Amino acid sequence: MDRMKLVLQYFQTNSESISNGICIVLALVSVKLYTTFDFNCPCLPQYNKLYSMGVMIVPPIILFFLGVLVNRHTGIMMDEWVRPIGKRTKNPAVVKFLFSAMLQRSLLAPMVWILVTLMDGKIFICAFSMGVDPNTFTGMPNNTGLDVHRLMAKVPCKEDVIFRNSSFRKAVSRYVRCYSQAFGWSILLLLIMVGALGRLIKPCFDNRGSSMQTRYWSNYLDVEQKLFDETVALHTRDFARKCVVQFFEGVQEEENEREVLNLPYPQP
Amino acid sequence: MDRMKLVLQYFQTNSESISNGICIVLALVSVKLYTTFDFNCPCLPQYNKLYSMGVMIVPPIILFFLGVLVNRHTGIMMDEWVRPIGKRTKNPAVVKFLFSAMLQRSLLAPMVWILVTLMDGKIFICAFSMGVDPNTFTGMPNNTGLDVHRLMAKVPCKEDVIFRNSSFRKAVSRYVRCYSQAFGWSILLLLIMVGALGRLIKPCFDNRGSSMQTRYWSNYLDVEQKLFDETVALHTRDFARKCVVQFFEGVQEEENEREVLNLPYPQP
Amino acid sequence: MDRMKLVLQYFQTNSESISNGICIVLALVSVKLYTTFDFNCPCLPQYNKLYSMGVMIVPPIILFFLGVLVNRHTGIMMDEWVRPIGKRTKNPAVVKFLFSAMLQRSLLAPMVWILVTLMDGKIFICAFSMGVDPNTFTGMPNNTGLDVHRLMAKVPCKEDVIFRNSSFRKAVSRYVRCYSQAFGWSILLLLIMVGALGRLIKPCFDNRGSSMQTRYWSNYLDVEQKLFDETVALHTRDFARKCVVQFFEGVQEEENEREVLNLPYPQP
Repeated sequence: MDRMKLVLQYFQTNSESISNGICIVLALVSVKLYTTFDFNCPCLPQYNKLYSMGVMIVPPIILFFLGVLVNRHTGIMMDEWVRPIGKRTKNPAVVKFLFSAMLQRSLLAPMVWILVTLMDGKIFICAFSMGVDPNTFTGMPNNTGLDVHRLMAKVPCKEDVIFRNSSFRKAVSRYVRCYSQAFGWSILLLLIMVGALGRLIKPCFDNRGSSMQTRYWSNYLDVEQKLFDETVALHTRDFARKCVVQFFEGVQEEENEREVLNLPYPQP
Repeated sequence: MDRMKLVLQYFQTNSESISNGICIVLALVSVKLYTTFDFNCPCLPQYNKLYSMGVMIVPPIILFFLGVLVNRHTGIMMDEWVRPIGKRTKNPAVVKFLFSAMLQRSLLAPMVWILVTLMDGKIFICAFSMGVDPNTFTGMPNNTGLDVHRLMAKVPCKEDVIFRNSSFRKAVSRYVRCYSQAFGWSILLLLIMVGALGRLIKPCFDNRGSSMQTRYWSNYLDVEQKLFDETVALHTRDFARKCVVQFFEGVQEEENEREVLNLPYPQP
Repeated sequence: MDRMKLVLQYFQTNSESISNGICIVLALVSVKLYTTFDFNCPCLPQYNKLYSMGVMIVPPIILFFLGVLVNRHTGIMMDEWVRPIGKRTKNPAVVKFLFSAMLQRSLLAPMVWILVTLMDGKIFICAFSMGVDPNTFTGMPNNTGLDVHRLMAKVPCKEDVIFRNSSFRKAVSRYVRCYSQAFGWSILLLLIMVGALGRLIKPCFDNRGSSMQTRYWSNYLDVEQKLFDETVALHTRDFARKCVVQFFEGVQEEENEREVLNLPYPQP
């Protein structure tokens, strides 16, 4: 039972599970970020597409690098890669395994951001509202002094005075949003299918023994680092205790001999 | 198992994790401060830029110094730097390691402030609304007695009577805000990329052994200070108990001899 | 492990941390007080400045003395200062250390009050609205029978009939508020910089040994007081028990002899 507890504890503080936890937190953060971020379409023909592409591409890149930065596997992989060889030969399969583990986890949050933006559709409307043919929809306001191009660029701006309570604006938005959601579902479907098939097919091509060995070594590297830290904590504590006790004894002795300091001490 | 507990306890009360916690709290405080702070653009041509720059630059400096002030690493670093050498030689790598740890943590909160202000865009609108060419946008109010310069300076003031419900004001704000958000995302992208690449590349240039040694010593310095405080607490308690007991006995004796005080005491 | 618990308990009930807690509570109380306090500018030329200065200066003084009053360090410091010398010589460094600890903690709440009032700006508007040149702003109401001096004194009163929905009043308020916030940020910047630099530079000028000694003694004084209180509680309880038991025995004997009292007692 004690052995069980120890193992459970080790699984809890396992790098694998910590990394998974961090990934999930990052994914949730990306959703939260998207909902709190005040998306602000410029509604100007020449800026709409640029701004939308920026919001669609830059945050996923940021989230990806953030994932790389906070992932514990990154550190383990780099340590394994640059360590002096010593008596244990380097196994490139282990580095490859750690690298793919790092990559998979770092890609989760960016994917969530992209899917959330596509499902929500606001960015798609901002980017592609100019590409819609306005003749398909009825009720286009024509008493404004703007040309069609500039008018369609204003569709994403709900509060603009031209489109206040206009059913034309709503219809165009609905139409573009459909495409956006269709894209989102398709990407999600593709990803999940690739993942599931990859898991099903991969064992057929793997050498069973070497993959188990890789798993063993990646776990070993993780545990080694943790044990080093723990041993450092114990060793420093031991050493510091000796030094501090010596300092207090030193103070006591000095007093006994010369009574220079006014520091009293308990009589033994 | 006992040894494990001790280690776990030490990791929990580790300076590293406490410092990280303080940093995150400071970052959250900076977000909270920004949201509660009543940003108040003067809407006067000669003051707009000055005020905006002040709000953009001064609080991050304050947050940086606050980070330096509350960071436990600051104290440990200064103690290591100025201590008399004694029998343990000073290692400049340890001081450098502590300094970089302090700096990184202190820079988090200012960065969060700057990014939040850029994402929100209010300050950018206040600073750069005068630089926008008003002819790009339709619907500029022209029945006011103000020149263009003074008019554009009033764009950030929503409640001003000139721009009440004006779509011109909204269009200009949207335009400037786009730039602000683009700046914000770019800075974030740059920072994260530098951080991630730094983490990936740094181990390649480090001497593995010496970096582990530095980690050991920075941990030692932390533990030494804590143990000193603990030993002081134990030592003072021991000593104080002796003094207080002596005082009570002294009172008792005096009474026995001369019965001057009316303080009664229990008969043994 | 028992020793560890004892130490942990002592750190939890340490005077230092209790004092810090009280300070933070006082600071929060001062913010709460300011937000609930109904600031009420008289809007009369001769009273505006006086009232504002009062609100700006009197509460911080009250908060400072309140801080001195509730701070545990105050008591410890005074006890150390006035105690008879006995066998332990007085160390002025300890008194100085305790005094500076008390002062720092007592100054936190007043500073928070001053900064909050400056950031909010209402008091500044009340005090300095008369000093603004009204010609810089357009839309000054001129159909009122008041002179400029009396008119400007009415700027802080939002609900006054002269300035109802006036953009002139809002522009003047914004202008004065900018100065107020600039003052606030500058003071905060100065304080934090002095604090951070003080923490960085102070260890360079300190004699390492004597500062550790001071820390030891300030801790000792704290522990001594606590132990005295604990011993008094134990001692009085012991003595009181004896007296009460003696009384009951006396009652018992008297009752046995004369049965005057109806007081029952448990049979032994």
